[in-house]
Amino acid sequence: MSTATEKVLRRRLIQRPAESGLRQTLYDVIFEADSPLGRGFDIGLLVAIIASIVLVSLETVPEYGLQRDPNSEVPVSSLAIWFWVLEWFLTILFTIEYVLRLYCVRHPLKYAFSFWGIVDLLSILPNYLAIFVQYSAKSFVILRSVRLLRVFRVLKLWRMMSQADELADAVWKSREKIIVFLAVVLVAVTISGTLMYQIETVLMGQYHDSDFTSIPQSMYWAIVTMTTVGYGDVVPHTTIGKIISAALILLGYSLIIVPTGFVSAELTSKIAGAAEHHPCPQCGLPNHRSGAVHCDRCGHRLDEAILPEPAPEATPT
Amino acid sequence: MSTATEKVLRRRLIQRPAESGLRQTLYDVIFEADSPLGRGFDIGLLVAIIASIVLVSLETVPEYGLQRDPNSEVPVSSLAIWFWVLEWFLTILFTIEYVLRLYCVRHPLKYAFSFWGIVDLLSILPNYLAIFVQYSAKSFVILRSVRLLRVFRVLKLWRMMSQADELADAVWKSREKIIVFLAVVLVAVTISGTLMYQIETVLMGQYHDSDFTSIPQSMYWAIVTMTTVGYGDVVPHTTIGKIISAALILLGYSLIIVPTGFVSAELTSKIAGAAEHHPCPQCGLPNHRSGAVHCDRCGHRLDEAILPEPAPEATPT
Amino acid sequence: MSTATEKVLRRRLIQRPAESGLRQTLYDVIFEADSPLGRGFDIGLLVAIIASIVLVSLETVPEYGLQRDPNSEVPVSSLAIWFWVLEWFLTILFTIEYVLRLYCVRHPLKYAFSFWGIVDLLSILPNYLAIFVQYSAKSFVILRSVRLLRVFRVLKLWRMMSQADELADAVWKSREKIIVFLAVVLVAVTISGTLMYQIETVLMGQYHDSDFTSIPQSMYWAIVTMTTVGYGDVVPHTTIGKIISAALILLGYSLIIVPTGFVSAELTSKIAGAAEHHPCPQCGLPNHRSGAVHCDRCGHRLDEAILPEPAPEATPT
Amino acid sequence: MSTATEKVLRRRLIQRPAESGLRQTLYDVIFEADSPLGRGFDIGLLVAIIASIVLVSLETVPEYGLQRDPNSEVPVSSLAIWFWVLEWFLTILFTIEYVLRLYCVRHPLKYAFSFWGIVDLLSILPNYLAIFVQYSAKSFVILRSVRLLRVFRVLKLWRMMSQADELADAVWKSREKIIVFLAVVLVAVTISGTLMYQIETVLMGQYHDSDFTSIPQSMYWAIVTMTTVGYGDVVPHTTIGKIISAALILLGYSLIIVPTGFVSAELTSKIAGAAEHHPCPQCGLPNHRSGAVHCDRCGHRLDEAILPEPAPEATPT
Repeated sequence: MSTATEKVLRRRLIQRPAESGLRQTLYDVIFEADSPLGRGFDIGLLVAIIASIVLVSLETVPEYGLQRDPNSEVPVSSLAIWFWVLEWFLTILFTIEYVLRLYCVRHPLKYAFSFWGIVDLLSILPNYLAIFVQYSAKSFVILRSVRLLRVFRVLKLWRMMSQADELADAVWKSREKIIVFLAVVLVAVTISGTLMYQIETVLMGQYHDSDFTSIPQSMYWAIVTMTTVGYGDVVPHTTIGKIISAALILLGYSLIIVPTGFVSAELTSKIAGAAEHHPCPQCGLPNHRSGAVHCDRCGHRLDEAILPEPAPEATPT
Repeated sequence: MSTATEKVLRRRLIQRPAESGLRQTLYDVIFEADSPLGRGFDIGLLVAIIASIVLVSLETVPEYGLQRDPNSEVPVSSLAIWFWVLEWFLTILFTIEYVLRLYCVRHPLKYAFSFWGIVDLLSILPNYLAIFVQYSAKSFVILRSVRLLRVFRVLKLWRMMSQADELADAVWKSREKIIVFLAVVLVAVTISGTLMYQIETVLMGQYHDSDFTSIPQSMYWAIVTMTTVGYGDVVPHTTIGKIISAALILLGYSLIIVPTGFVSAELTSKIAGAAEHHPCPQCGLPNHRSGAVHCDRCGHRLDEAILPEPAPEATPT
Repeated sequence: MSTATEKVLRRRLIQRPAESGLRQTLYDVIFEADSPLGRGFDIGLLVAIIASIVLVSLETVPEYGLQRDPNSEVPVSSLAIWFWVLEWFLTILFTIEYVLRLYCVRHPLKYAFSFWGIVDLLSILPNYLAIFVQYSAKSFVILRSVRLLRVFRVLKLWRMMSQADELADAVWKSREKIIVFLAVVLVAVTISGTLMYQIETVLMGQYHDSDFTSIPQSMYWAIVTMTTVGYGDVVPHTTIGKIISAALILLGYSLIIVPTGFVSAELTSKIAGAAEHHPCPQCGLPNHRSGAVHCDRCGHRLDEAILPEPAPEATPT
Repeated sequence: MSTATEKVLRRRLIQRPAESGLRQTLYDVIFEADSPLGRGFDIGLLVAIIASIVLVSLETVPEYGLQRDPNSEVPVSSLAIWFWVLEWFLTILFTIEYVLRLYCVRHPLKYAFSFWGIVDLLSILPNYLAIFVQYSAKSFVILRSVRLLRVFRVLKLWRMMSQADELADAVWKSREKIIVFLAVVLVAVTISGTLMYQIETVLMGQYHDSDFTSIPQSMYWAIVTMTTVGYGDVVPHTTIGKIISAALILLGYSLIIVPTGFVSAELTSKIAGAAEHHPCPQCGLPNHRSGAVHCDRCGHRLDEAILPEPAPEATPT
């Protein structure tokens, strides 16, 4: 993972302008998060992205009447005008940012065709396209959702927090177990889904209504049930189906708690191993409890405190 | 956190009457919980507050017919009369308590305009206002809910239980992880909510009914699903929506178990650190790591072993 | 807890017949589980109790037509006759058992009026009463449910399994934390329930239908939601209600995972503490990994194995 | 468990042809997974089995119109023809595999009547039978579901992943606790199910509709609720039923988190025991407890510290 980070860093440095000046300063502010200005830019960008996502989300609420009519660009209600103004404000902001990014990198074309370059373009394009082309409001939403991906751009903010790494690390270390677990879950889901389909639909379907209309539907039920989500849109209606699904629930519950235990255990050992405070100055034993005064192996004082010695035989005369 | 407690203590002492006498005794009983009388007062207050909350709650049950008619203060049914009597009894009790609090503090005005002073006043005011002003029964309920906040006043009872601190501490230590986790959850919720909206409404909306009427609705679905609550008021209706939501459920489930693991791990290391092995024979410090040779407070050897030195190469001649 | 067990034991010994003979042998078989015969009796009793519970349960299923008609004692369908026969067989078995218990204890009256004596009587009485008295089938079910309590009688079987104690111990040790946790949950439930009632019914009730008909109903919703059960019979219908309930779900979820962590941590430290294998014969260090050959403090061999020394410098000449 | 594996290995070796040649090579490829070819065969088989399961599953979706008409073997829609072709392709593949298995084992009859032999036969038989016999499409599905069992045949692939063993081991070690836990759950389910039936149906059934139509139905509700699945198809309708079910939910939740803790704790102690500190400089044993001074296999000092002996009173003169 650290080599992956290095690769990203090296790829970035290729884009950093060699000569110091406005372009290099701009590059550091826009692409890096080490300086206060760079961090401020990132936070501002995060706020703008979140605002734009909130706008896109709220426009889809039918009762607000913000769904753009495909035949007229300017919306009618006063609330809709505010939304329209705000959105164009953000679009222009993102456009300026995009142009600045193109300006300050060493190889603009390379950036424009990189993953983030395309995402940046796609997040502003739909609004401009809407002026020229008359397309349905629905497909409009799909295009603008690309904007969501930009949230990840600011994820570098998280790198400042050491905790994110630790979390990612714990998940990463458990990856093999997670794969095994997913395989077990899928087999369990297939078997219990098929079983419930047989019982509810094939055997009892002529006597009762059945929600288990097909095996994929039953597998959907099995996943919804085993994860204890339990929507209730697919439920057994026969007595035998209820008994078997109750047994499957208990089994599935036992199965699904295992990965919880794994992640928890992984984190426990990590936290225990990270308790490296107070290395002993004499013998170098690394782990001591917080509050320890003496090394618990060699008895040497951990800190050269000016306090008197605690007990008589510890101060030999 | 301990400095915060100290600050609270100091602020309190400012209010404690200097001269001993009735006022100081009253102050100690009402504001402190150290003496048996003070603890008794707190428990009595807790019971009264809970009773008053139960009354306010039950009055809202429509089938009991206790909703006060805005045009007549005195209710009609015999059950309602009992409620009315009990509530006035509690209101008068809280009024006496409020007057006594004003009486025994050093600076009554300072108390009256403090947070708890305002809460205390607001919890009795609605009942008195109801005599003079004729307002709707609905808004009446809102005002009286302020009473709920008074429960926190008696939370000082919990300070007696050392466990509450430990619990709060474990949550507090995990705060950064919780923030990171919430950020991850919100990004996951936004992306999966938008994805389901696209699939269920934009792509398949013309063929099926869709519960995913807007992106905020879809994000509500994502939160309800990821936390495994699963009401079932918003569910996918298309086959492709079911497949994708099943995948999202498994992903979301994997994601949401991580904080469980963190809190669990934090608590494990806390409890493990408090394990009682190897009490020091000299200073009596109870907790040492397994494997510790010297007491980590006074440096004394933990066991008076008569054994020779561990290994030959460790005793240089 | 061990003193409680002792008390139970002493109380039992009071009932044990002093003189050896048939009565004492019977007592040991019926009341104790130490001998093979006593254990066999307990297992047989467990099977009979479970069978009788299954019978009582299945009789309430309307489609089997086993609900006894209050006007005729003997049921009609052939399935019902089987049930009727089986139930009288079990009733007579329990009657014999009850009489034997009365016969073999030292003070029959003391037993007859003890808790288990009354439960034993109540579990057979309804069937006999049904012959003489004509009462409704419904109240019949209530009386016969007392039989359920008898399951606990055989719980002494569990004492054979050392694991049950450990489990009970882990729960017992966490009891203070559980009380604090329940208090926090109840406060959270009251506050979030009232909040949702205000928003959904008081504020928005005139525009939408509301499931939050009263504060107790809202508190029921809060408990069902926070424990992630999520029936879906009470759900928010307004946009603002959905946003707030989504926030409350995330908060509640964070709150409710804490006790999971506590129990998990308690058990972890318990299991870690129970890993006391391989005490060192030289320095007495108690905990070594399974598979350890040398004490990891003094280097002494843990077992006097006849294997040659692993490495040359460990065998000084 | 390792002896069980050995037993399986020995049973297999009985079937391995003694003389090297085509049969032995085929045997190693088909039955073993040690060689690259054998592993490739297993992965290919896994893909074929998954494909065949997906086919069987999708055929049950009513909207695809793939349910075979019992009166005509060849389906009509072009999609159905593709399914028909693919399925026969897989059936012929499995037939070849079955014949090869019969050919290369030492005792073909012994294999044919072994568990896996019968499963292999049953997974291809339904398709051939369908040509001669005209039976209902429904029962057809049941027979073909046997195919699912074949997934387990390829589970030997998992043996390559060491993680699966560890997971199985953790579950296995907790088996006694799981049995105790299941017993507790079943008693809790029976008692709370009966209680809710009494309250909702027997006591309040004449005033409200009740979902708790019988005790088994109530026990189904109890399991669905305690595991926090919460479908919502059975919910309390009376106020008293809601209060009691809320209390039962909290109790049940507390109960059901215990096994999570157990598995988690078991895994924690396992992982903690495997932590990689202090590799031995002499024999290279990687895992030592923090605080270990000597390697616990060869007794060598773990660190070549040049420090004086820990504390004065520990060096007797």
